[in-house]
Amino acid sequence: LLVKALVVDKEAHDVRLEERPDPQPRPGEALVGVRMAGICGTDLELAQGYLDFGGVIGHEFVGRVEACDSAPEWVGRRVVAELNCACGECATCRRGLALHCERRTVLGIQGRDGALAERLAVPVANLHEVPAAVGDEHAVFTEPLAAALEVLEQVHVCPSHEVLLLGDGRIAQLVAQVLLLTGCELTACGRHEAKLALMRRRGARTVLAEELPERRFDVVVEATGRPDGPAQAVAHCRARGTVVLKTTVHGSAGVPAVPVVVDEITVVGSRCGPFQAALRLLEGGAIEVTQLISGIYPLPRAREAFAYARGREVLKVLVDAVHDGV
Amino acid sequence: LLVKALVVDKEAHDVRLEERPDPQPRPGEALVGVRMAGICGTDLELAQGYLDFGGVIGHEFVGRVEACDSAPEWVGRRVVAELNCACGECATCRRGLALHCERRTVLGIQGRDGALAERLAVPVANLHEVPAAVGDEHAVFTEPLAAALEVLEQVHVCPSHEVLLLGDGRIAQLVAQVLLLTGCELTACGRHEAKLALMRRRGARTVLAEELPERRFDVVVEATGRPDGPAQAVAHCRARGTVVLKTTVHGSAGVPAVPVVVDEITVVGSRCGPFQAALRLLEGGAIEVTQLISGIYPLPRAREAFAYARGREVLKVLVDAVHDGV
Repeated sequence: LLVKALVVDKEAHDVRLEERPDPQPRPGEALVGVRMAGICGTDLELAQGYLDFGGVIGHEFVGRVEACDSAPEWVGRRVVAELNCACGECATCRRGLALHCERRTVLGIQGRDGALAERLAVPVANLHEVPAAVGDEHAVFTEPLAAALEVLEQVHVCPSHEVLLLGDGRIAQLVAQVLLLTGCELTACGRHEAKLALMRRRGARTVLAEELPERRFDVVVEATGRPDGPAQAVAHCRARGTVVLKTTVHGSAGVPAVPVVVDEITVVGSRCGPFQAALRLLEGGAIEVTQLISGIYPLPRAREAFAYARGREVLKVLVDAVHDGV
Repeated sequence: LLVKALVVDKEAHDVRLEERPDPQPRPGEALVGVRMAGICGTDLELAQGYLDFGGVIGHEFVGRVEACDSAPEWVGRRVVAELNCACGECATCRRGLALHCERRTVLGIQGRDGALAERLAVPVANLHEVPAAVGDEHAVFTEPLAAALEVLEQVHVCPSHEVLLLGDGRIAQLVAQVLLLTGCELTACGRHEAKLALMRRRGARTVLAEELPERRFDVVVEATGRPDGPAQAVAHCRARGTVVLKTTVHGSAGVPAVPVVVDEITVVGSRCGPFQAALRLLEGGAIEVTQLISGIYPLPRAREAFAYARGREVLKVLVDAVHDGV
């Protein structure tokens, strides 16, 4: 049996659709039929050679468990899955930090095929059942929303805080909604008026990047995906304030050390977050993602979806792996 | 009346001894006769053009109050003084962060003459009386010890933590002693066997920089004074661990952003710290500084003291402003 899958084409610095052998789940893994998958900024970077990944791309998805020898009760359930696959045995896992397992593989990113395919194999330990009220087009946001929520897991954002969000793209849109949950005074700074308008509708103040005033904020979240983002974040953070770095950028210029020391700024790196909280917030409607969907492509046109996702005005592009037509 | 003072010679990228008019305290300031002053790494950088400072250098000192119109009860007392002189009115001061006052002047660093002189003017608010049991040669360490203590004010270092200290110089020696107060397992990494030996005597494990193993630590304190220090600190910090940046280095390469995000590392900039705690620990003998003194020069030979302080094997160089002979 062959399945369609989108793989990184290292030579072309692009992705290409292939027919591949059906994934074979190992012990403790489930075979999941993908229903919907999302394309994120990391996917776009991976396609261009980031991390030298060469397998099936994609790590944001919702699917249905088709087979699971070790835990058959999962079969038939609609699921999302955490992307970090831990060994469970290294010092970091034993410390309870499985997300940071030293020997981890990562769905569609590192050492393991991902979700832009008809089917993929996922450790049962990574599965989360999706509540019936959360449709596929919303459930596919669970992973990026969890990553956005990680900011609040790491930093205590208070209602009295003046918070600056740098960026207006896919992850920044979710971070904005997450930050607004805290009751803080949020200013979002971006380069696309239409994307800033989405944030304004949620309650953020917004400012175009070229009009960002000199003033400094209690908390600055950097989600620009630009190499100069970290330096800009530090420049706008007050003394003893906090900078959260949300994006990994190929060839980033880094965080300038001198102002961090002189102003005693705390810089927090932030990656993956809590899936259960993300599902609960999607279910309750506290986070709204419909307006973030720029387009839905069928799997056979996934390469086209990638090209579309690079557009300046585009937010989330989804790939429908169930409905093959257009 | 003229007083001897050591000033930055911008053209020569050095310091030179001058005779200057006696400092005139403004309202709220005391006139302090300097007894002993220390030379730190920042002074050496200032002499070479850092921050474009052109006044009297020096911010580590102990002295005796000679005049103080606004608070005459201070006259005759032996004092140390905090170096950051706050406006008391800006938003940062009102927030209680006077150390970070937006309009601050800083003794011997920024907009205000410093302590490598016979006398200087200091705001009364900055004074701390020195306990009788703390001699001048120890009291002069109050400022750098307070800066070292700031690490513990900012980061909760636990007895179970494996901590790496990068650096074996002046500030690193004090940071090592401060970290050992916590009961943590401390490894200090440096480039000078004799300096590492001092740390070993206090209970640290030590390793030469070229022999530092690949392993990663819960907390890494960067006090190397080297441009590549921050990147090295991040490379040795475990996932979800903490890096403390203690040195401001001219032209630092900065903190690499990608590993900070991927490993969710927290980077904390750390500058000035609590003077009262420093004086108490010096008084009680919990921190020992005698072995850190490499030499004491009389004020007329302060320029020579600066040159000596640049030596690879040298730790703290003091300048005695009371005993003019050799």
